[in-house]
This record gives sequence, structure tokens and C-alpha cells, in this order.
Amino acid sequence: MEKPLILVTNDDGITAPGLRKLVAIMKEIGDVVVVAPDSPQSGMGHAITIDNTLHSKQMTIDHEHGAPLEYSCSGTPADCVKLALQELLDKKPDLVVSGINHGSNASINVIYSGTMSAAIEAGIEGLPAIGFSLCDYTWDANFDGATEAIKTIVQEALTNGIPQGTALNVNIPKTDGKLPKGIKVCRQAKANWKEKFDKRFSPSGREYYWLTGEFELLDKGEDTDIYALNNGYISVVPTQFDLTAHHAIQTINSWNI
Amino acid sequence: MEKPLILVTNDDGITAPGLRKLVAIMKEIGDVVVVAPDSPQSGMGHAITIDNTLHSKQMTIDHEHGAPLEYSCSGTPADCVKLALQELLDKKPDLVVSGINHGSNASINVIYSGTMSAAIEAGIEGLPAIGFSLCDYTWDANFDGATEAIKTIVQEALTNGIPQGTALNVNIPKTDGKLPKGIKVCRQAKANWKEKFDKRFSPSGREYYWLTGEFELLDKGEDTDIYALNNGYISVVPTQFDLTAHHAIQTINSWNI
Repeated sequence: MEKPLILVTNDDGITAPGLRKLVAIMKEIGDVVVVAPDSPQSGMGHAITIDNTLHSKQMTIDHEHGAPLEYSCSGTPADCVKLALQELLDKKPDLVVSGINHGSNASINVIYSGTMSAAIEAGIEGLPAIGFSLCDYTWDANFDGATEAIKTIVQEALTNGIPQGTALNVNIPKTDGKLPKGIKVCRQAKANWKEKFDKRFSPSGREYYWLTGEFELLDKGEDTDIYALNNGYISVVPTQFDLTAHHAIQTINSWNI
Repeated sequence: MEKPLILVTNDDGITAPGLRKLVAIMKEIGDVVVVAPDSPQSGMGHAITIDNTLHSKQMTIDHEHGAPLEYSCSGTPADCVKLALQELLDKKPDLVVSGINHGSNASINVIYSGTMSAAIEAGIEGLPAIGFSLCDYTWDANFDGATEAIKTIVQEALTNGIPQGTALNVNIPKTDGKLPKGIKVCRQAKANWKEKFDKRFSPSGREYYWLTGEFELLDKGEDTDIYALNNGYISVVPTQFDLTAHHAIQTINSWNI
């Protein structure tokens, strides 16, 4: 039986340990091609490069553990997927996986997530796609606890497909190598970021800001991704790119417009 | 009666004619503050600046027709909204409007849209927000046909509020100054971009790409934004930032995970 072709990308860049781990796991399941940003693209949301040129370079990161075919790309995660599908791959992949992100993409973070933008871009192109994130922002995060669950989810996705019009947002609790308690299918928790701008002055006296903030959970539901993660479970949220708030159409239709 | 405070932003940059037009229209309705990118940010999706500093500068673009208070910001449209709400404004605005974008943000374009990311960011912060886009990519696009409809929609939004958890995506057909046929509340049409990468070589022989593509409509519905626009109507789509595909949760729950 032919092995499935799996495209791996991310937003932390082609050398990120989380991506190297995902490549290692995917090599046990299929033929792997990597097309990933040449530099970190965190917080890029669903950005694409339309007013600038894109560069791509075939490269080898790790002779022993890498994929046989890897490309770095100067663009965003969504650019990587577009370039892979249209230019770099000989055939359509059976699955697109993005990550493993260093940091949570649960709840409202999905909106700002480069990791998930790659998965959603693949979903828009009609391909099964999954974004994986570990709730640990450090570069030397321990991804070992996630290995078995990632394998299981990917194998189920390859067997069953993923519902049309969706991509999966998988977040994994920080367990420092221990196994999470299990996997929960969830909805996105309602939340936002309480921003705080750290205002500073450059040596020449020019004002500038660093964006910082605190995550503010506005949701007491026990069926949310945050609830699952806080209780030691992996969260799986099917996310969609039809942003229509169907329930609001009737309300707006009652306006005098 | 106190005038409403309206924050105006966009993704084409603070000098874009579409923003200047929106400022002029909003000045007839309320007190206007502008916080907009200092350079074009089209295609930025919901990007935010987390690995770099942000700069902001108070400035005057047009003494006669501008807003009394305008700031340019070095960040993305979502950054502009965050910075405005947390640092630059003295009080919460009653409404946030983004645009008028030079080019369509209907259908799947909403995903890549900097214009809509600003509106959605404001929505996440709990504020009524609307993104306006004209289906004309040129810098000297004629926005005159849109004036009355924009006024009407903004006044209705100020009167009724906007349904919680949504922001409005308003697209206006290219009419070269003539009035559109009317306003339709719609759902987002199913579509994608058939990418084509224009491969070129630099003078030194290095390969590079320009992203180009053709819009591919995959939806025959007569209740979509594209259908409305193609028939000369303004489309209003309530968009949401809860990306959960609730209908898919049951399907994934049947997996063996």
C-alpha cells in the first residue's frame, strides 16, 4: 500500500524543535515533505504576501531525522501552504499538518495563530489539515507526552477524513513529557486578551511600545478547549473558515437599511 | 446630546483615499479619531506585532477634511485597534469602522483581510465594529456611490448595536459614483483562490515568486455576498470570531481517539 503524502509546516520556522518533532512523528506514518517559513512567523494570523516577492530554498536541516525533501520559504505560513500545493509538490498531499507550535493556540488565540492559518489555508484548498500546539512557549519545550496522541489523531484523520469546511485545532497541555489524560473534542472558549502596552523610550528619546497582555477567560463552560487543557486533556476543536454568524442575519435584517 | 465617538482605521494606510472618505462621512455622524497603519497592510489577515516594537505618531493629514486627532502606527490593523483602545483614546469608542478598503473583502477574502481584522479585533474587545470595502482595487476608486449606504448602516449600528460576538463585513459594488441598487444581508459565499505563482529570476539568477491567482466561486446560492455584489447590491455579512464548527463536533467525537 502506498504511504500517505504528508505536508508539514509551522509558524515558528523550519528549524523549530516543535516542527522537527512533528516531522519525526509523521515519518512513522507517511512520506513527508516540509515547506516551512525561514524565520519565525508567530502572530501572523492569516497573512499572505501580496506586495512582495517570495523566495524558497531546498535544504537539509537534519540528515538523519529530517524529511527527504524540505524547503524553507520567505513567506508566512499561509504562503508556505500555497507555494507547496501549487509549485513545490508533485502531487496533492493526503494531509497537511502544522506545528507543533511552541505555545497555545486554544480559544481566541486561533485568530492570531500562524500555525492554524496554515491548516486553515489547506482546508480552504479542500485538504484535510490539522494544527498542533503545545501549551509551552519555551524553545526547549518537552513534546514527548504528545507523541502518541498526535499519531492517533493523524491516523484517524487519514482514515475518516476531516469534515468539509473545517480544519482541526489541536492543543496539548504542558506535561513535561508525561502522557496527557486523554483527548476531548471541544468548542473554542470565549476569551480575549487584556492588552497592556509596555511604553519605553529609545536612546534618542523616541517613544515605542511592546505589546503584552493577559489572557482573560470569559467562559465557564466545561465543553471548551481551555477547560479540557486546564484539566490535563488534549483539546480538539474543529474550526471553520465560513465566518458567517448565521444566527445574526435575522437581527440585521430587521434594521432599517 | 453627546456625539458618538468613532474610531476609524484601515489596512491601506493612513493616507489612503478610502480612509479619507470614511473619515469625511463619519465626521457628519460623530467625533472621529483615526489610528491607522503608517504603510499599506493589505493581506495581513489577523496579524499582530509580538516580536517587534510598535511606534505611533500623532499627525495631521488634511487640515480641512481630516479628523482633529489622528495617529499613524507602525503595526498591523489589529495592532492599531489594540493600541487605540489601550493607549491612545481617553474613552471607549461607541463604534469602530475600518476602511473603506480599496478592493473586495467579500467571500473567502475576509480570511486574508486586514480591514476586517481591525473590525474583528474591536468585536473581540466587545465593541460594535464594521469593515467597509469597495470592489475596486485602484487608488483613485470612486467612493461616492457608497456614501449614503455607509451613513445608513453606521446610524443603524449606533442605534441597534451589533449582535454580540460579531462584526459586520460590508462590501460595496464598483459603481463609479452611481448609487448601488440597495443593501442585502448575506452569508459568506464559498470560494477560494486558484493560485498561480509567477516564477522569475533576479539579475543574479536567484529564483523568486509573485503570488497571483484567480477567484474561484464554488457557491451557486442567491443569499451570498458575491451574488449580491454581482447584482449591484451592497452586501452585509455578520462575521464571527468563534471559529468552532459546531456541526462537526459530533463527527469527530465518533472517531476512535
